[in-house]
Amino acid sequence: MPYVNIKITRDGATAEQKKALIAGVTQLLVDTLGKNPATTTVIIDEIDTDNWGLGGRPVTELRQESK
Amino acid sequence: MPYVNIKITRDGATAEQKKALIAGVTQLLVDTLGKNPATTTVIIDEIDTDNWGLGGRPVTELRQESK
Amino acid sequence: MPYVNIKITRDGATAEQKKALIAGVTQLLVDTLGKNPATTTVIIDEIDTDNWGLGGRPVTELRQESK
Amino acid sequence: MPYVNIKITRDGATAEQKKALIAGVTQLLVDTLGKNPATTTVIIDEIDTDNWGLGGRPVTELRQESK
Amino acid sequence: MPYVNIKITRDGATAEQKKALIAGVTQLLVDTLGKNPATTTVIIDEIDTDNWGLGGRPVTELRQESK
Amino acid sequence: MPYVNIKITRDGATAEQKKALIAGVTQLLVDTLGKNPATTTVIIDEIDTDNWGLGGRPVTELRQESK
Repeated sequence: MPYVNIKITRDGATAEQKKALIAGVTQLLVDTLGKNPATTTVIIDEIDTDNWGLGGRPVTELRQESK
Repeated sequence: MPYVNIKITRDGATAEQKKALIAGVTQLLVDTLGKNPATTTVIIDEIDTDNWGLGGRPVTELRQESK
Repeated sequence: MPYVNIKITRDGATAEQKKALIAGVTQLLVDTLGKNPATTTVIIDEIDTDNWGLGGRPVTELRQESK
Repeated sequence: MPYVNIKITRDGATAEQKKALIAGVTQLLVDTLGKNPATTTVIIDEIDTDNWGLGGRPVTELRQESK
Repeated sequence: MPYVNIKITRDGATAEQKKALIAGVTQLLVDTLGKNPATTTVIIDEIDTDNWGLGGRPVTELRQESK
Repeated sequence: MPYVNIKITRDGATAEQKKALIAGVTQLLVDTLGKNPATTTVIIDEIDTDNWGLGGRPVTELRQESK
């Protein structure tokens, strides 16, 4: 019955990668807590880098500097 | 003052349907808990089926199988 | 498959009231969007009034004034 | 280490405005609670006005009336 | 930089189990998406069974029936 | 109309500190985006350090090491 929300920056994660993430986190909840996978919900939000801040600055800007 | 967040798969819900959902859940909070509708906030998130997992698999895949 | 999160102030909502809220919002998603109730998840968070702000002020304070 | 999620209606907030919001809320957590800005995360969600309800009605409709 | 929120029913998950969950989901984001573990945040919410609904009914009630 | 959710570790933040946080973030949304403070909602969640992970480890453990 768990509910998992994963937020990542929008960076072109593929459907295959998101499928692996959904499968992996669902299995992890089985392995660590014995949860029922059938009713485990996973929602992935992909966030624009202008809308994600770390250390007080947008990720867009942090990435330009580190290029 | 309640805050409600409803997540559904992105399936072409119309503005009229979302309006009915907003009106209905706001009224429900009046009826069940006596909440003030004027300050009740409802936010609907529509999620791509690649980004929603149930039973360890993306909804995109679950739907292809059930066709 | 919808996921609903309802946040209300912690005011002594009873188990019966929360049960009615869960039943009502699940049925609303059937009625407005044709969603499957079996996989609809509802989570209610009850929030201390010190931790809920409206209009820039804690609800604790707003309620003291309106007494 | 704080995590902040800010939801606003999608109204054309600029990258500069969102940058100011990220900087401001991160600094506020330093000033009020002594939090470490380096690990403070801020995520801004911009929500379509059809998907935001207040007082039981979509913001799209509320705005049309107030024109 | 990912942010993960995991909601489970309040059932006496131990600190060791939650530690394993935090480690596992952080590693999963490294393995599937190449994310930086140092800035990955995981927050676990434990929810009372009166406040969690599935299929339109509180988990408290679903569990009493299945005893 | 903005909605802000702030998650911090449960460390004894006082009602006065939370009041300052609510006032500050509401004013910030006025200053940066011209939002209406009257309908701005702020919710603060205080999270046990066993339930907050950073860098793949619970904050409880990170803090013991840094003592």
